[in-house]
Amino acid sequence: MAQQEIDAALITCNVNLLYTCGQILDGYLYLPLQAPAQLFVRRPNTLTGERIHALRKPEEIPALLHELGMPQPHKLMLEGGELSYAEYTRLAACFPQSETINGTPLLHQIRSVKTEMEIALFRRSGIAHAKAYQQIPSVYKEGMTDRQFSIEIERLMRLEGCLGIFRTFGKNMEIFMGSILTGDNAAVPSPFDFALGGEGTDPSLPIGANGSKLQKGQSVMVDMGGNFYGYMSDMSRVYSIGQLPDEAYAAHQICLDVQQAVVDAARPGVVCEELYALAIEQVSKAGWADRFMGIGQQAKFIGHGIGLEINEAPVLAPRSKLSLKPGMVFALEPKIVLPHIGPVGIENSWVVTDTGVERLTPGEEQIIDLTQVR
Amino acid sequence: MAQQEIDAALITCNVNLLYTCGQILDGYLYLPLQAPAQLFVRRPNTLTGERIHALRKPEEIPALLHELGMPQPHKLMLEGGELSYAEYTRLAACFPQSETINGTPLLHQIRSVKTEMEIALFRRSGIAHAKAYQQIPSVYKEGMTDRQFSIEIERLMRLEGCLGIFRTFGKNMEIFMGSILTGDNAAVPSPFDFALGGEGTDPSLPIGANGSKLQKGQSVMVDMGGNFYGYMSDMSRVYSIGQLPDEAYAAHQICLDVQQAVVDAARPGVVCEELYALAIEQVSKAGWADRFMGIGQQAKFIGHGIGLEINEAPVLAPRSKLSLKPGMVFALEPKIVLPHIGPVGIENSWVVTDTGVERLTPGEEQIIDLTQVR
Repeated sequence: MAQQEIDAALITCNVNLLYTCGQILDGYLYLPLQAPAQLFVRRPNTLTGERIHALRKPEEIPALLHELGMPQPHKLMLEGGELSYAEYTRLAACFPQSETINGTPLLHQIRSVKTEMEIALFRRSGIAHAKAYQQIPSVYKEGMTDRQFSIEIERLMRLEGCLGIFRTFGKNMEIFMGSILTGDNAAVPSPFDFALGGEGTDPSLPIGANGSKLQKGQSVMVDMGGNFYGYMSDMSRVYSIGQLPDEAYAAHQICLDVQQAVVDAARPGVVCEELYALAIEQVSKAGWADRFMGIGQQAKFIGHGIGLEINEAPVLAPRSKLSLKPGMVFALEPKIVLPHIGPVGIENSWVVTDTGVERLTPGEEQIIDLTQVR
Repeated sequence: MAQQEIDAALITCNVNLLYTCGQILDGYLYLPLQAPAQLFVRRPNTLTGERIHALRKPEEIPALLHELGMPQPHKLMLEGGELSYAEYTRLAACFPQSETINGTPLLHQIRSVKTEMEIALFRRSGIAHAKAYQQIPSVYKEGMTDRQFSIEIERLMRLEGCLGIFRTFGKNMEIFMGSILTGDNAAVPSPFDFALGGEGTDPSLPIGANGSKLQKGQSVMVDMGGNFYGYMSDMSRVYSIGQLPDEAYAAHQICLDVQQAVVDAARPGVVCEELYALAIEQVSKAGWADRFMGIGQQAKFIGHGIGLEINEAPVLAPRSKLSLKPGMVFALEPKIVLPHIGPVGIENSWVVTDTGVERLTPGEEQIIDLTQVR
């Protein structure tokens, strides 16, 4: 903020309030560069304390600052990437003497490097996420559809403590708890910017399971969002109904190899586009480039930062000049889609340490045959 | 649009795309007042057809319009209540010669009156919603927490076809699939603008069930969002663990009476604030005003429009001068919270007909004792 000559930030969107205040509330955090923060709260009305003030509408903030003996800001940072245009202009109009600036890029930058406390929550999330996945074979029943399978896995996630809500940044990301993809549905492109698509069951949510039967000789990928304590852990595992054709195991192994290569290379200072290039090189050499990250419509990334939202910085994508820093947390998801079989590959969540990366989502990575367990 | 001298609308947010195009996509609907609409699509790349054009970024739209022989708009309507400030200003910058206007209020007005097709989808939703609720007593087990009960009800909803995703308008509405409230948790205020609150299980989602045991002599209210075909049906029912104190049945009956009074009065032309006043008058006369719609922090509405989002026009609230029109669909939810017992009351979804209103969510309205069924 000091570098950009911003005197104060006004924070009011849920994830940024959670980030700065540790809880969601209906109100405004006024965060001056050179003075203690003040919290103006509409709801809940039970939230009281030093530097917490009740308010009914944002138009009251300038007078409240005046009462507190605080100057009006010269340059005020608002959440321009999250607030609607109508909300932003309303807030800006409350401060007619102030210049306003979109502070979302700065907030994203700060949020991309996690604190010790955030990493601790991610560790707990990863373990809970993996614990739910361990039970997946126990809910499989012959003749199930992908949607029925999804419902039982959602329940396992919820029973392990998943809050269910799946927070994303931006208008083009919407999904329920995650996606279950089997057979040719895995190749159906979606309007959303996720690694894979799927038709969904209704035009109002064209993503994921489409009611396909889980069939012998096909794979099924489980990719559910975590969110056990506000932080979105991300993890995919692949199952099969009986034995798959050999090429499926070969393609799966390529994805595991890509994961290993990226993980071996990832450490503070490494530039994200280099990790992407490394993956593409390896996949191309093995001859799978045209089925990597989808068929026809391919996702142009192999990993993405995770945090309070599923799509944070850094993105492991071409032209991403961002370099890894200790404390960054990202999901790495090399995946290949095989016509008539389904998706294979892997996804884990990783935290960048001082010397490399460390896995947050434990658990078996090989394809598990659902007809052979129990 | 003609009344406001708007030449064209540019629609790109999910619910408005769903409303205008019948499906969600990553792209832009350009809707001129005097010419056929054009669809500019980024994803999915499988979407093709007459008047459908591929694009990579919105900056290409003016040139594409020029190629199509279409003039640039003088006054362009953008989704100012839904687009982020950053997205809105980016789109506005694509049309430097055009005046832009926030079209969200107009879109909300149009969306508040449902078409025959939308009402048909609401009817089907209401039936599916009620069918899931019928099975609620079968998933109750002695000693359960509100959260465990919620997970089993979520599963019932999903098995009946609920898409799970809960769409809201505005930054201050977030919830997973709905809320289950029992005992004193029903009186805990939340930051969100829902009828009742609840502590939740984590500060990152402070709403609904908080892990309370379902206890003898307490009520439990189930209030799940529908969304079986994109449209959010809304329905609440109350259950008890054994017999409740007499006052609970009396308070419940008052809520049913309020529902009946409002339903009897509701018809095209009736102003929403009058329906709210009618409810408050009846509740006050019965002596329950201080526990109506919460304790301490009370919701200031008794009903809300529903559609692709849970909070649409009209709102049945004080100072709402909007009058009912045939085709409007709203949820009516008179509720009373009783200390040490829990919430009672009712919620149904209603469509305004030419002569009155018609219920969309069938099913028993009395308090059902979960220990007496099966």
